Amino acid sequence: MKLHPSPVMPEGFQCASVNCGLKDKGTDLSLFMSEITAHAAAVFTLNRFPGAPVIVGREIMKKGKLRAIVVNSKVSNVGTGELGILNARKMGLAVAKEFDIDPGEVLMSSTGVIGKPLPIERIEKGISGIGSFFSKDPLVGARGIMTTDTHPKALSLSVGNATLTMVAKGAGMIEPNMATMLVYIFTDAAIQAKALDMCLREAVDSSFNMLSVDTDTSTSDTCVIMANGLKGPVDDGEFSKALSFACIEMTKKIARDGEGATKLLTSRVKNAFSREEARFIAKSIINSPLIKTMAYGADPNIGRVLMALGKCFHCHIEPADIEVMINGTLVYKNQNRVDFDEQKVRNLLSGELVDIEVNVNAGSFEAVAYGCDLTQGYIEENAAYYSS
Amino acid sequence: MKLHPSPVMPEGFQCASVNCGLKDKGTDLSLFMSEITAHAAAVFTLNRFPGAPVIVGREIMKKGKLRAIVVNSKVSNVGTGELGILNARKMGLAVAKEFDIDPGEVLMSSTGVIGKPLPIERIEKGISGIGSFFSKDPLVGARGIMTTDTHPKALSLSVGNATLTMVAKGAGMIEPNMATMLVYIFTDAAIQAKALDMCLREAVDSSFNMLSVDTDTSTSDTCVIMANGLKGPVDDGEFSKALSFACIEMTKKIARDGEGATKLLTSRVKNAFSREEARFIAKSIINSPLIKTMAYGADPNIGRVLMALGKCFHCHIEPADIEVMINGTLVYKNQNRVDFDEQKVRNLLSGELVDIEVNVNAGSFEAVAYGCDLTQGYIEENAAYYSS
Repeated sequence: MKLHPSPVMPEGFQCASVNCGLKDKGTDLSLFMSEITAHAAAVFTLNRFPGAPVIVGREIMKKGKLRAIVVNSKVSNVGTGELGILNARKMGLAVAKEFDIDPGEVLMSSTGVIGKPLPIERIEKGISGIGSFFSKDPLVGARGIMTTDTHPKALSLSVGNATLTMVAKGAGMIEPNMATMLVYIFTDAAIQAKALDMCLREAVDSSFNMLSVDTDTSTSDTCVIMANGLKGPVDDGEFSKALSFACIEMTKKIARDGEGATKLLTSRVKNAFSREEARFIAKSIINSPLIKTMAYGADPNIGRVLMALGKCFHCHIEPADIEVMINGTLVYKNQNRVDFDEQKVRNLLSGELVDIEVNVNAGSFEAVAYGCDLTQGYIEENAAYYSS
Repeated sequence: MKLHPSPVMPEGFQCASVNCGLKDKGTDLSLFMSEITAHAAAVFTLNRFPGAPVIVGREIMKKGKLRAIVVNSKVSNVGTGELGILNARKMGLAVAKEFDIDPGEVLMSSTGVIGKPLPIERIEKGISGIGSFFSKDPLVGARGIMTTDTHPKALSLSVGNATLTMVAKGAGMIEPNMATMLVYIFTDAAIQAKALDMCLREAVDSSFNMLSVDTDTSTSDTCVIMANGLKGPVDDGEFSKALSFACIEMTKKIARDGEGATKLLTSRVKNAFSREEARFIAKSIINSPLIKTMAYGADPNIGRVLMALGKCFHCHIEPADIEVMINGTLVYKNQNRVDFDEQKVRNLLSGELVDIEVNVNAGSFEAVAYGCDLTQGYIEENAAYYSS
């Protein structure tokens, strides 16, 4: 499967972004729109403090239909009580009025600082006339939702005659530095809401749900897919595969652009006792601060990998069975360090990818997790951040 | 309860440390010894890759009796297979021979780099004649077990007529930067092994088990207590209280000296649904990289606290019921930020302690967790570390 060299919004989809006065510079309000009502599905954060847009969004998604998604950056509308719910509804309503569409088919997202009221008047003003900025370039919409991202993120690929396009912001599953993960997926393929929902959950499970920048889970994470059907039906299996592929590619983009990140860190767990254990072990590796700093330092530190495996207390891990590879080189087997060319591995680790593979030899399940290194940049970005 | 101004080894206990050639400078081998056999109890790491000294140590502790504890720093004897087991035994045997005592009453610990064979000949040479360095000052023994610690750690207090003294190294539950937590406790009170074991487990549960520097769990963590009875019996309840108090004081010392740490971070959870949830929530706060960087940055970031609460997916957390206090100031209640004096709280946070208190209002259980801030120092220390 191959990504298009330049992403483009699928047939019948457009996007726009404007500055409505939330950020000092750059756009801070984006709109994604289909010319006809699309089937839609979404997954939201599991955080027990969901933002107002997530609470209202869950309600809207029950019908499985969307015309538009409106997103602001800078203020997240989280921890804002009843006023927050009201403001989230007002945001959707403003779009419905502007384009004379059903307010029940407008989803809203907000990302940014927590606990501050949403400046709803500015957003309403920004929505007025936003249609004159419509573009087929998904990067236009991607720019308005950026927070600590260093660049806008979008990708496209083909599924049969149809196009699948994804716009995202990330920098982590991390929130208060305004780094919520938001992913919007658009396709002109014809797919029913139920099938869409299944495909989305499957794709998210092996991509965004296996991504971690710092173990922190945002109160606003949202991933939505809209399918307007303008290019007709496509093969279900092919669509599902394309969606999973695209989600993994976007996951890597987000990990690479994690706060302060200089490297993509992947962990591959093979032959685990169960699917859950494979995922748990892969996450334990990707989330370990000592593995993350080791990636940054480009050191093949076997001890840290064993430690991260060993702290999966409830998993089937037998030291005698474990094999560890770092960037393709076997470094640990038979309860002992393997005699390997350290300088060669250090050179590989100095590149942009650090890959840790663990053969657990306890079963037949595997998992891949995605993350990034932990650097001074992360500390600087997050220690310097003021919440008000 | 009050700590003694200067710690001292209890009646009948001595300690020594020498440089046996593992470290370039400073002592790297310590011995703690009782003049008579002491009742003893221990808890070890839960890591599934325990070091050889932990494997052998579990066996030794079955008898509940110890005369001596020998500890080296710099090399951990972890991930070393059968040879590691042999070397751990040799280390105990050398002490038994030197002092003509039962090798089954000598516990050994090693802390440092993983996956390298223990330089057992150097250690054996170091043990020979170590008795001429015996001292009543526990800081002497504490120095030989230091790794990334910035200072040696020891404390003493009285329990009735008896003395309780604790020696530790820490810098984290973190290992490959040689930062395993090792704690050795000595008392001249007369207490049976079984009671000792119960007291130790209870004390560790609310102290060292609630300490986290970076979520990583060492393969060598060890906490041992020896009671030689030379000062006769003490009140059981009083002893248990003193032990818990001392463990919490040492926990704070270790947290304050976490790698790169500039602040002690504590989280207090009140009125949780269950004991487990209270502990889980307190740990979620203490371990969040965003909370840790917020502590470093001295910012009262309510969003990050709500996020850390909200990611305790399985816990009884109702946003409407949550109250948050930062360093004694109420900052969140009734689903909204409280109007508080931000400058005053920032000034408090600029001090050496950051304290986050959460009232969950879901039950009657409470917990306190201990940690530290996350700083550039941590990154520098751990990214620069070479495993060989």
